[in-house]
Amino acid sequence: MFESFARRHIGPSDAEQQRMLEAVGFESVSDLVAVAVPEAIRAKDALKLPAAASEVEVIAELRALAGRNQVLTSMIGLGYHDTITPAVIRRNLLENPGWYTAYTPYQPEISQGRLEALLNFQTVVSDLTGLDVAGASLLDEATAAAEAMTLARRAGKSKSDVFVVDHDVLPQTKTVLATRAEPLGIELVFQRLDAELPECFGVLVQYPGATGQIRDFRSLAEQAHAKGALVVAAADLLALTLIASPGSLGADIAIGTSQRFGVPFGFGGPHAAYMSVREGLQRQMPGRLVGVSVDVDGDPAYRLALQTREQHIRREKATSNICTAQVLLAVIAGMYAVYHGPEGLKHIARRVHARAAALAQGLSGSGIPVTEHFFDTVTASVPGKAAAVVAEALARGINLWQLDGDRVTVACDEKTTPGHVADVLASFGAALGVEIAAHDGEDLSALPEELVRDDDFLTHPVFHTHRSETSMLRYLRKLQDKDIALDRSMIPLGSCTMKLNATTEMEPITWPEFAGIHPFAPEAQSEGYRELIETLEGWLAEVTGYDAVSIQPNAGSQGEFAGLLAIRAYHQAGGHAERDVCLIPSSAHGTNAASAVMAGMRVVVVACDTDGNVDLADLDAKIDKHADRLAAIMVTYPSTHGVYEETITEVCAKVHAAGGQVYVDGANLNALVGLAKPGEFGADVSHLNLHKTFCIPHGGGGPGVGPVAVRGHLAEFLPSHPLREGAPVGPVSAAPYGSAGILPISWAYVRMMGGDGLRAATEQAILSANYLARRLAPHYPVLYTGRGGLVAHECIIDLRQITKETGVTVDDVAKRLIDYGFHAPTMSFPVAGTLMIEPTESEDLAELDRFVDAMVAIRAEIAKVADGSYDRTDNPLRNAPHTAEAVTSDEWSHPYTRSEAAYPVHSLRDGKYWVPVRRIDQAYGDRNLVCACPPLEAYED
Amino acid sequence: MFESFARRHIGPSDAEQQRMLEAVGFESVSDLVAVAVPEAIRAKDALKLPAAASEVEVIAELRALAGRNQVLTSMIGLGYHDTITPAVIRRNLLENPGWYTAYTPYQPEISQGRLEALLNFQTVVSDLTGLDVAGASLLDEATAAAEAMTLARRAGKSKSDVFVVDHDVLPQTKTVLATRAEPLGIELVFQRLDAELPECFGVLVQYPGATGQIRDFRSLAEQAHAKGALVVAAADLLALTLIASPGSLGADIAIGTSQRFGVPFGFGGPHAAYMSVREGLQRQMPGRLVGVSVDVDGDPAYRLALQTREQHIRREKATSNICTAQVLLAVIAGMYAVYHGPEGLKHIARRVHARAAALAQGLSGSGIPVTEHFFDTVTASVPGKAAAVVAEALARGINLWQLDGDRVTVACDEKTTPGHVADVLASFGAALGVEIAAHDGEDLSALPEELVRDDDFLTHPVFHTHRSETSMLRYLRKLQDKDIALDRSMIPLGSCTMKLNATTEMEPITWPEFAGIHPFAPEAQSEGYRELIETLEGWLAEVTGYDAVSIQPNAGSQGEFAGLLAIRAYHQAGGHAERDVCLIPSSAHGTNAASAVMAGMRVVVVACDTDGNVDLADLDAKIDKHADRLAAIMVTYPSTHGVYEETITEVCAKVHAAGGQVYVDGANLNALVGLAKPGEFGADVSHLNLHKTFCIPHGGGGPGVGPVAVRGHLAEFLPSHPLREGAPVGPVSAAPYGSAGILPISWAYVRMMGGDGLRAATEQAILSANYLARRLAPHYPVLYTGRGGLVAHECIIDLRQITKETGVTVDDVAKRLIDYGFHAPTMSFPVAGTLMIEPTESEDLAELDRFVDAMVAIRAEIAKVADGSYDRTDNPLRNAPHTAEAVTSDEWSHPYTRSEAAYPVHSLRDGKYWVPVRRIDQAYGDRNLVCACPPLEAYED
Repeated sequence: MFESFARRHIGPSDAEQQRMLEAVGFESVSDLVAVAVPEAIRAKDALKLPAAASEVEVIAELRALAGRNQVLTSMIGLGYHDTITPAVIRRNLLENPGWYTAYTPYQPEISQGRLEALLNFQTVVSDLTGLDVAGASLLDEATAAAEAMTLARRAGKSKSDVFVVDHDVLPQTKTVLATRAEPLGIELVFQRLDAELPECFGVLVQYPGATGQIRDFRSLAEQAHAKGALVVAAADLLALTLIASPGSLGADIAIGTSQRFGVPFGFGGPHAAYMSVREGLQRQMPGRLVGVSVDVDGDPAYRLALQTREQHIRREKATSNICTAQVLLAVIAGMYAVYHGPEGLKHIARRVHARAAALAQGLSGSGIPVTEHFFDTVTASVPGKAAAVVAEALARGINLWQLDGDRVTVACDEKTTPGHVADVLASFGAALGVEIAAHDGEDLSALPEELVRDDDFLTHPVFHTHRSETSMLRYLRKLQDKDIALDRSMIPLGSCTMKLNATTEMEPITWPEFAGIHPFAPEAQSEGYRELIETLEGWLAEVTGYDAVSIQPNAGSQGEFAGLLAIRAYHQAGGHAERDVCLIPSSAHGTNAASAVMAGMRVVVVACDTDGNVDLADLDAKIDKHADRLAAIMVTYPSTHGVYEETITEVCAKVHAAGGQVYVDGANLNALVGLAKPGEFGADVSHLNLHKTFCIPHGGGGPGVGPVAVRGHLAEFLPSHPLREGAPVGPVSAAPYGSAGILPISWAYVRMMGGDGLRAATEQAILSANYLARRLAPHYPVLYTGRGGLVAHECIIDLRQITKETGVTVDDVAKRLIDYGFHAPTMSFPVAGTLMIEPTESEDLAELDRFVDAMVAIRAEIAKVADGSYDRTDNPLRNAPHTAEAVTSDEWSHPYTRSEAAYPVHSLRDGKYWVPVRRIDQAYGDRNLVCACPPLEAYED
Repeated sequence: MFESFARRHIGPSDAEQQRMLEAVGFESVSDLVAVAVPEAIRAKDALKLPAAASEVEVIAELRALAGRNQVLTSMIGLGYHDTITPAVIRRNLLENPGWYTAYTPYQPEISQGRLEALLNFQTVVSDLTGLDVAGASLLDEATAAAEAMTLARRAGKSKSDVFVVDHDVLPQTKTVLATRAEPLGIELVFQRLDAELPECFGVLVQYPGATGQIRDFRSLAEQAHAKGALVVAAADLLALTLIASPGSLGADIAIGTSQRFGVPFGFGGPHAAYMSVREGLQRQMPGRLVGVSVDVDGDPAYRLALQTREQHIRREKATSNICTAQVLLAVIAGMYAVYHGPEGLKHIARRVHARAAALAQGLSGSGIPVTEHFFDTVTASVPGKAAAVVAEALARGINLWQLDGDRVTVACDEKTTPGHVADVLASFGAALGVEIAAHDGEDLSALPEELVRDDDFLTHPVFHTHRSETSMLRYLRKLQDKDIALDRSMIPLGSCTMKLNATTEMEPITWPEFAGIHPFAPEAQSEGYRELIETLEGWLAEVTGYDAVSIQPNAGSQGEFAGLLAIRAYHQAGGHAERDVCLIPSSAHGTNAASAVMAGMRVVVVACDTDGNVDLADLDAKIDKHADRLAAIMVTYPSTHGVYEETITEVCAKVHAAGGQVYVDGANLNALVGLAKPGEFGADVSHLNLHKTFCIPHGGGGPGVGPVAVRGHLAEFLPSHPLREGAPVGPVSAAPYGSAGILPISWAYVRMMGGDGLRAATEQAILSANYLARRLAPHYPVLYTGRGGLVAHECIIDLRQITKETGVTVDDVAKRLIDYGFHAPTMSFPVAGTLMIEPTESEDLAELDRFVDAMVAIRAEIAKVADGSYDRTDNPLRNAPHTAEAVTSDEWSHPYTRSEAAYPVHSLRDGKYWVPVRRIDQAYGDRNLVCACPPLEAYED
């Protein structure tokens, strides 16, 4: 046990666990589990996983796997370009738990650092694309294109169901669009830009095209607008430093990837895609949007804007099912721009362009026809010889892209050297036409003259301030210090499973052998990756009791979508295309409904009883009513109320009996691993959240990874490879293995825990939740419990009565917790007026007790409001959180003391977190929407 | 220029540089240099170094070098044992600029985090060795033994000059002792422990011995004490978890290394050596000592204790010339103990022992005689076959130690697996005698029964609290947040050159291929290292104008000592053993004098004139007086006053004419690189400080690296290999290449800067210092200047008149700077009542201006004291620094406001550093010396 990683991952020691059991009233963890987890769902056997390996062993195994990947020079392009991650950013951001363990910025007061970083990202996108509002990132370029397509359909004036796609769009974008279009009844028309535009609601242009061509789409945009259609440009951010912005050419929406702004290949992801829109479309945007607002003192403060668009509120009417962004990657891309500034970016772009120009010159000088106008990518015509050229380049350590038998595409990037250019030319049997200077880049003649960019961008001071590594380092530290992440405190968010992201799990992802592989590199170069992925998929199947797993979906929402597509395809293949009703309990995550709509299903809500369980009578009624159309039911297990419903097997049986499929949302899998398997207790499909249950860090709001797991009869309907057409179900992500670059994290976690460790973690998570519930119950009512008065892995405390009696709200308690150094629990989900708390297995007893102490102290403060010792409106709860500025201000007019405000418990005196802003006015920012870096004057005294 | 690393290393941009030049009154940097740097010393040619490489190129080159090292399993022992650095410690401490860029904790208020970490280390050492007081680390085990030897001589009652050394002491300790003993007239007697003890002042025992043997030295200790001699035990910390402490056996002093507590091999260093002593000897200890004191509120606070022992105060009467500790490494070792706790350490020790026991059983079972009582190391007798056994093991990927032709030593460690044991046995032609269980370690029968440890250790709660990775992570963050390091603010310490430690420089040192090499591994395994070292030595020679460089000295003090030894040996070889007078100007660093004494020289002080320059008349007089005995002069250049003395070439010539050698202290080399070369302008020897000029981070007070550079006639007198005997000059460090593990940092710096970049850095450093001097001059008098009223790379501002007029002291200004978010400049060195400021080239103009603004604001505060607006004793200066607790306290009785205390300038409102304690009472802690973790009650409210 002394060597076991599980001992480090699981917070409480054996002795602490015993004390917690006593508090909850059990002798052993197995006694607790026997009561808490329904017998009917419990797995009979222990998990069949390899015995736990030590941290050192796992690093050795991962080094061996990494060694079987081969890092060559990839000049493949297709939306993935090699890039230099500035070392100061890699170490102090990507490898820094202060950044990567942070949660989504739903509590904006403790998230000002990453919100500022995201605002930088949005400013980069908005400036470069020449559009008014940019979001805080999307999952990948292909799904961003699909989101743009549906946005165009929602927002445009055309009634057409046709979406026109430029023939020179990236191939994986085409296949993902097809996957997304079909269930929604959208017809895709692929054609050349100069062809006549049919009636349509939107058109997608790749700028520059997949083959490298840069085309002026102004007249196309005019045509489209005349038809009431919107124009979407998939644009390359680096190219945009030199060529006219999509906005200036008439695009209404721009999408793309920011990968080449410092984010490694990672075999396909995670990378931050982007979207920006013209003024007027922002309320239709999918995903998250950071905006500027003010706090109660009127000081500028950041927070997520326009949240009412999002799926957790609008369910089947949501603009999208997306709930994760790619925050960590967007932050890196934004910081890359901060570090280089506009001049630096232009310099990089000019150099990349010069390499491509030298290549083109060499090729055409040798009689090989090439793309006329290009930025970094050149397509060469070598009739019948494409394969030979690619093979020749490979022999020189360079990957090119064989477009077809006659054409080869070569993409230059930040790392392309004159030597690479010479090697590529040699592979074509050509020679350099010009000398490539070391610092070239003045000649822009291969850009179309009318498209050379002439407007300024990134004029905000933040892009002009941090040129030295020292300054950049301090900027990263300053932002990090504004936030609460797991490196400072527990983050007891219900349903979000903020557990340890162990260093050993994290270290391998920045090794070059994992970071440096292009997703479409020849298979022989990714042997290690593919073995790791296959193994991980197998382990996840074993853990969940399913037969097949695809790790392609790069967020939980995408896993849901893929799972529902599998169900849909299964019914269609069985001759039951009419089955399109998806039952969803009223307690479900809003995403479920949004995903069902995306998958072409109709949502029918099933009621819950007062305990939050599925109402079986209503279920029967709804099944009856929709018997012939029933496609599926989507349930979360344990329920979103944090309870193991006793009736789950019955629910499954009823739906199966009616010909439906059962989808179990894996959001709460942390309460099941090693104890019960959805695939065995009645479900047909689930998605998992590797970023919840399997230790991928939340990254401040992404990346997430959402594999989909299915029983055998659905296996053939899992997502297909993005470069393959005609599969039963198309791809759901741009990259074949989704966010492959971070899968070593989950692989390492399972490998180090082994079956026993995973089960022990689940048991501790259940014990910890019940310990908190038991300790808090005398102070706050616990809302839902299952057998034995027990909860599962989280508990809901009910503040509604308190609010009624004292005026103290859930918000007040959440913000007051900040003064105690904590991130608030989940607010008002799934029930308004409550807090949902999930401690996870990784918090030790001292931290759990520190949290209980804070909650008890806050309860005492509430009591003072109730008994009149505190004013009902001017009290430490209502005024929370308190900044250092507020508490040190020369005037202090509050009827409570400064030390009550700042140091309500003694332990805060040893290193208090000082929140940087006071309570933020959410509505102000939505009324006065600003989504790019505000001018410095906004901060003046 | 856009790609150049120099642009990232050097803070100010070209435009900023221009503004600074305007402020100083020059048109160009070369104009400035032409006036500031005396023509006579200026180098004629540009540096002959390879052209600057980019960060990406340097990483690629270092990967190639790393690839030429071979990481095998090293079971060599000899004081270096493989160990597992917990990943959470590696990433969040060793790879974290918040820890590694911190300075020595001379400003204790902003160093509480690392001081607490060092106190943990001292507690580990004190507890495990069973002695009363432990220091904050020494350079390596061999030099620690030498320091113990001189301590015994100083402190013991015996008049003998004999120091007895156990024959089973590590071989490198023996050679370093010999180097150190000879100039001091100490006679070393090597003998077995059971031999009769001669008259002596001390005796050194290795416990367990180099061959693995554990011997009871109680009766020896009694004999020694009877003769008035002190007993020094060189003890293995891991072994001490199982065997009786040296203190309990009668040792007065314990020394050793803490390397195996989580610090990688690094080809020999850096590692933290330790020393602990019996009550009564603490005031004689060399090096630094952290102690507990109180702040003005009476709250416990840490700071360096008993500083009056140190060389910077006592000069030639100092207890030692040591001024650097190995803080970063000591902190890692302490955290290793915090993370494992006593049970974890014992568990590791038991398992290591069990491996050794299995090995011993297998060998003796096969008829091979082995060590009887051992902890982890077994010596086997294989007459005539030792080389064959070692070769056989090597073929299996394992390094053993061939003690002589007949004996092989095998050391087990934390990483030794049953497979390794089996392989070693097979190399001997032996077989496993017992089954090695996966979790063994109950059988301690190979330990001498009477020496099995039975007392508790590490009982303090800090060693029982952080067992989960989450808890450990937060502890590291909490301590880090208490401190100011370069990741938050400039650290404008005169003479300390707190410049950027770039990430690209730092990354390679934790690669396994650099971290995992044993210093005595077969040469073929360190090809990459040795090429890197040879190249670096060559570059340093080119930069300094010398002919040969040795990077062996692992601190500046050791470089000084080595340089003086070379001079001494040179005179002896030339038949001038009588030349033993070392001239040292009164302005010199105190270390110079202490080093001269260690090298057997007599110190003669040369006066300085009122400008701080060497007084040439007094120099002539002193040369005259000591003409026949003159060995050397030691001068710092530019002078410790931050001025380029015009007369340096004259000084050199005078000393040479009198037959002396010239030693130029390289502490201020940052003002010379690329502009002037000591080896060309008249010096014979210098040491460099790679941790000042060549970007090795200060690590919170070490490691330092102090190569010695000499002209050709001294080359043969550079330090020799520690395993070689009989060289003209012995080794000065335990490992052949000193702190080899961090040399990639300096290598990368030089490689990325190239000659032009290095010169540009120096020029900027000079410009920045002059910019500060010019900006501050209207507010504070600048004390010394050279030609054109210019300073070199640092400037001294004089507060004596201010103090006289207002009572505001240097201390008040330094502590008030903390409230402004700055680390103070160097206080009262070289002149009492002054502040010495060195901005370095890495700070950009914004940060320099922020510092000037703070100093100007402080001057205005001083003016208020002067004019009576502020009370003379109750003002923001005298009460600085202000903690958040102080400023938020419910009572506020000061005649200035809270916001004046906390936010004297507006920019502090965007992320203020809050100091964790108020001003510390230094004297209290020295009167009430506590140097181990205080009980928790000390912190109670």
